[in-house]
Amino acid sequence: MTYRNSIWTLAALALSSTALSVPASADEGMWTFDGFPAEQVRETYGWAPDDAWLQHARESAVRLTGGCSASFVSGQGLILTNHHCVASCLFDNSTDAADLLEGGYVAATREEEKRCPGQQAEVVTSITDVTGRVQSAYAGMNGEALTRARDGAIAAIEAENCTDTATTRCQVVTLFGGGQYKLYKYRKYSDVRLVWAPEDRAATFGGDPDNFNFPRYSLDASFLRAYENGRPVQPQSHLQWNPRAPEEGELTFVVGNPGSTSRLYTQSQLAFEREVRLPITVATLSELRGRLISAMNVSEERAREGGDLLSGVENSLKVYIGRTTALNDPEFTAKLAAAEQELRSRSAGNTDIGDPWSTVDNAVRTYRELYLPARFITPSGELFGYAQSLVLAAKERAKPDAERLPGYTQSALPLLEKQVLDEKPIYPWLDELQLSWSLSKAREYLGADDADTKLLLGTESPEQLAERLVSGSRLADADYRRQLWEGGLAAIEASDDPMIQYALRLEPRQRALRQQLNESYQGPLTEAGGRLADARFAAYGDTLYPDATFTLRISYGQVKGWVERGEQVPFQTTMGGTFDRATGNPPFDLAPAFAAHRAQIDPSVTYDFVTTNDIIGGNSGSPVIDRAGSVIGAAFDGNIHSLGGNYGYDPNLNRTVVVSTAAVQEALEAIYPAPALLAELKGG
Amino acid sequence: MTYRNSIWTLAALALSSTALSVPASADEGMWTFDGFPAEQVRETYGWAPDDAWLQHARESAVRLTGGCSASFVSGQGLILTNHHCVASCLFDNSTDAADLLEGGYVAATREEEKRCPGQQAEVVTSITDVTGRVQSAYAGMNGEALTRARDGAIAAIEAENCTDTATTRCQVVTLFGGGQYKLYKYRKYSDVRLVWAPEDRAATFGGDPDNFNFPRYSLDASFLRAYENGRPVQPQSHLQWNPRAPEEGELTFVVGNPGSTSRLYTQSQLAFEREVRLPITVATLSELRGRLISAMNVSEERAREGGDLLSGVENSLKVYIGRTTALNDPEFTAKLAAAEQELRSRSAGNTDIGDPWSTVDNAVRTYRELYLPARFITPSGELFGYAQSLVLAAKERAKPDAERLPGYTQSALPLLEKQVLDEKPIYPWLDELQLSWSLSKAREYLGADDADTKLLLGTESPEQLAERLVSGSRLADADYRRQLWEGGLAAIEASDDPMIQYALRLEPRQRALRQQLNESYQGPLTEAGGRLADARFAAYGDTLYPDATFTLRISYGQVKGWVERGEQVPFQTTMGGTFDRATGNPPFDLAPAFAAHRAQIDPSVTYDFVTTNDIIGGNSGSPVIDRAGSVIGAAFDGNIHSLGGNYGYDPNLNRTVVVSTAAVQEALEAIYPAPALLAELKGG
Repeated sequence: MTYRNSIWTLAALALSSTALSVPASADEGMWTFDGFPAEQVRETYGWAPDDAWLQHARESAVRLTGGCSASFVSGQGLILTNHHCVASCLFDNSTDAADLLEGGYVAATREEEKRCPGQQAEVVTSITDVTGRVQSAYAGMNGEALTRARDGAIAAIEAENCTDTATTRCQVVTLFGGGQYKLYKYRKYSDVRLVWAPEDRAATFGGDPDNFNFPRYSLDASFLRAYENGRPVQPQSHLQWNPRAPEEGELTFVVGNPGSTSRLYTQSQLAFEREVRLPITVATLSELRGRLISAMNVSEERAREGGDLLSGVENSLKVYIGRTTALNDPEFTAKLAAAEQELRSRSAGNTDIGDPWSTVDNAVRTYRELYLPARFITPSGELFGYAQSLVLAAKERAKPDAERLPGYTQSALPLLEKQVLDEKPIYPWLDELQLSWSLSKAREYLGADDADTKLLLGTESPEQLAERLVSGSRLADADYRRQLWEGGLAAIEASDDPMIQYALRLEPRQRALRQQLNESYQGPLTEAGGRLADARFAAYGDTLYPDATFTLRISYGQVKGWVERGEQVPFQTTMGGTFDRATGNPPFDLAPAFAAHRAQIDPSVTYDFVTTNDIIGGNSGSPVIDRAGSVIGAAFDGNIHSLGGNYGYDPNLNRTVVVSTAAVQEALEAIYPAPALLAELKGG
Repeated sequence: MTYRNSIWTLAALALSSTALSVPASADEGMWTFDGFPAEQVRETYGWAPDDAWLQHARESAVRLTGGCSASFVSGQGLILTNHHCVASCLFDNSTDAADLLEGGYVAATREEEKRCPGQQAEVVTSITDVTGRVQSAYAGMNGEALTRARDGAIAAIEAENCTDTATTRCQVVTLFGGGQYKLYKYRKYSDVRLVWAPEDRAATFGGDPDNFNFPRYSLDASFLRAYENGRPVQPQSHLQWNPRAPEEGELTFVVGNPGSTSRLYTQSQLAFEREVRLPITVATLSELRGRLISAMNVSEERAREGGDLLSGVENSLKVYIGRTTALNDPEFTAKLAAAEQELRSRSAGNTDIGDPWSTVDNAVRTYRELYLPARFITPSGELFGYAQSLVLAAKERAKPDAERLPGYTQSALPLLEKQVLDEKPIYPWLDELQLSWSLSKAREYLGADDADTKLLLGTESPEQLAERLVSGSRLADADYRRQLWEGGLAAIEASDDPMIQYALRLEPRQRALRQQLNESYQGPLTEAGGRLADARFAAYGDTLYPDATFTLRISYGQVKGWVERGEQVPFQTTMGGTFDRATGNPPFDLAPAFAAHRAQIDPSVTYDFVTTNDIIGGNSGSPVIDRAGSVIGAAFDGNIHSLGGNYGYDPNLNRTVVVSTAAVQEALEAIYPAPALLAELKGG
């Protein structure tokens, strides 16, 4: 379940502000730490974690701003996560001469640990309910007035509570689609470095064909280290490393940050997904995939340079195709329809709740009109992304905090600044490819005669425009970006950089569209979201979990295979199985170090295993924790049935895929030897 | 509505054997010549063609086996069709040094007219009802026994009626999904040559963005000539060329060969389209599009060499995306559901009809299981296509005619032989790209562990296998193909050509799948199709038109714009409008000859116009005929609303797009001067 940096923005398109709760059953649920259903767990498994256990797990859990989860596993800031969560870091630290992604990386000393551009590690330190303050700020309002009042209140709360933005970060999270607002306070570490990573092929053995599949033979694990003031961080807590095999049926907890789910979408929202968003997303991303594949075919350099983006695109595509399949399965959608019908029945006659479904229907109807321009008015590419962030940051910083766009408030700016100013390699051909693709898709879907198409293209063709903007831009130079960031609006407006000028040209229209969306879509959804949440709490009580929001959650479950078309899928694989599955040809070719060390590898070591934990993209890298509070694996994927998990959890089929600590230990000992790291893990 | 050779096979995937009729309304209908609703036309328009008019139109109409329609427009075998219908011919006659597609072509003398590989012109000479004989051959049967008996009877009828396969072709056509069988006898001309074509940019001005759009500025017209024994053919009839502007509201007839429609699909068939076939088709073709775009970006040669395939892919994609949009429109699908419901009600209690819908439901349920292997067991590419045809032809020719596969009977072989043996350029990189793409999609959809994936790939990767097969094959050499064709199965089996060996490896599994499909899908559909047709005839009488089958039809309608989101779209454009719309950049750049002759072009000449005629892909090139029986244009496209026309005709929105004879005349006079051709057209 790769959830790479470059893809986060794509996946984020699916985020909705109407994330509502469902009555949970059988291992279902991405629970908040302040709403953990201990009784339910005890009833099912005869045991449940106590507060101390939960606190330890929470304090050891790390969120990676690149879009992943992780955990501290030593007292010196060592972080366990997935290989695919550090792939961008490996990529950004690579050159054609030294390909760290292909070859893997073992830092022999602390000095050799390599900085990861744009990456930041965050640990939750407190969760505070601020529902009353936020809701009362917009009481009686609707449309854009509502979203403005809400965003202003959130900005104020965040600014008040995190005055030291160098070490803390505050985020007010909207839960239950506006039914709850919680302030999450984080200790943040903005210097994250690479410690150890296996070869890419060891992590991606089976490649895209095996992604979201099981049985699986993947070493999708890596280690990072958090630094502060040039020294390793000593975290408050860390998990004990336990390199043992899982036992079938044992209770497991996954602690991490599921990115987004849409489990309580109303029928009209689901129809919009199925009829509009998913078909467009799959068609356009498929074309991007094809453009990348052929462009990377030209040379080994391009194959390397495009690899990270292609992995992200293929992963996203598999997600969206899986969602399409789920929403085209009448049996699956009938359950969702029945759940809505039940809630409607239970809420009938409650005048406080009224008919929020009609409000959502109307909002979705408007959204159908605004969707295409809103989607296509922002072209793709790293350089355009920089330009847009620079332009918006300059404009928004000139305003009082409460009036700024959400991503540009005092509390949000430090991470944005880091992401814009961190040095990282830019490959112009790749930027041109993305820009040209996205502009041509804009013209295709909006039509050649559309006003937004004309704004985007003028009289140029997508190819010409992309070439002109990318070849003329200096934004690949981090110093130049810093100069513009620090120079503010005056520097931006004076810049002759064509990409900056292009971002300035699009900005007013983007702002107008955002305003229209707030007025007729986001505002009404937030208002209706509150009533829908009330309906759920009234109908099902308060043991409910909110839709995922890329904030810390805990899920419980057990180590367990499943039955696929009448055949039992085993709960684990062994490292020796890799050699049976290898064909010698990509993506089923052995990683060179696996081939070289075959004699040293114990074939019986548990490699990957599956559990019933309920997770989703963003959970990548989450520690899988046993009753004792030790880490026994890192979640890195779901099985193919987990893709429908965006809309609903199926306990019979939905599985989390984990790389075992036993396999990582074996790799550290026998394949990519790292004695210092082993000692550190053992020392705890 | 491009319907190019290379795409025909793709579009043909959508063909179904349950093509049933609907009660027609307001200009709807692709009527057979033996079922023309003259009374209906007279009632609506106060005039209707008589038998002599109809006979003349039918005798002048030409089917091009490349997948288009056309008409004779002189007594010396001159044929009017679309530019996009001769694009493959221009392409096959081009080299990097002389790009006929880009530059256009005017044959100054007959000697300069260039042969079109694989192309054949066919004129219907008789239509005979053979329903009784075919139906009685399979009476009481079902499953594969039914399809075998049916195919045997058809092969016998065709062989008996066309003993001279050099000049005639017989085809028994299944109409109303098995409700009717008609023998179409054709006079065929297998030597078709290129006479005149404008520059590609003149025909494709606006490119893919403007495809299926209107207002339009496209000179999508060309001329071919049929030859026999080295001399121009003197056809029995031809249409009078009338280079005049159309009048708004005037009655128009389109005579041509609509390829396929699915207007009477049952609800379960429509669900299969929406849930399975269309999503897979759009995703995979989008990726192919992307692969082509980037691969063509490498050099001017590759841009030229891949252009024809890319146009075809983009056209198909627009068709499939349009169909997806239609089937995701609840208002549109509600009408289809209501029509089925009405027919069910009217048929209730009729024990002869029973419940054919359940039969179809069951067949579709099985089809869902067989669809992926059936779709992906046949890889793409010209060379594989040759190999497969050679292998199957060798195997099938060894059998009695009645036992052969339908495409390999005595009556079908001559065209296949021509298509396999005609010389045409093969571009290995393009074949490798297609093969590699289709194999990787097979693995993606079937799964890496699937038995068919293993049959397709062995232990090779798609990329390696494609490279090995294409680089090692000699099938690009027409002499080698002839040698294998003439050598029969012995030569095929002795061949060390890797592509031939690969086709041999796949053939048994393809045959087994075909058999399974016949047994549990095609057989039951044919049986149920007969009952569904009976139900329709009983409910609505016999003034019905069958679903399209790429056989000759006539549609009536009028010159008329439409209202788009409250705004009136005019019924025509003028040639001068081209210059206003041109941006100077592709695909909105002027064709060089347009720019060069701007002063000579009369800006007021009608360029393209729209009519309410009901057509679909395959109708490309159809003559648009006025009351007087003269040709006033060539249909070349539908508007964007016509894409839903596969499932149902909307008289308010569905439009045919036509290039006027007035514009072609202007081009022949002022842009691409062709005085001899003008004289010939005038002479008639």
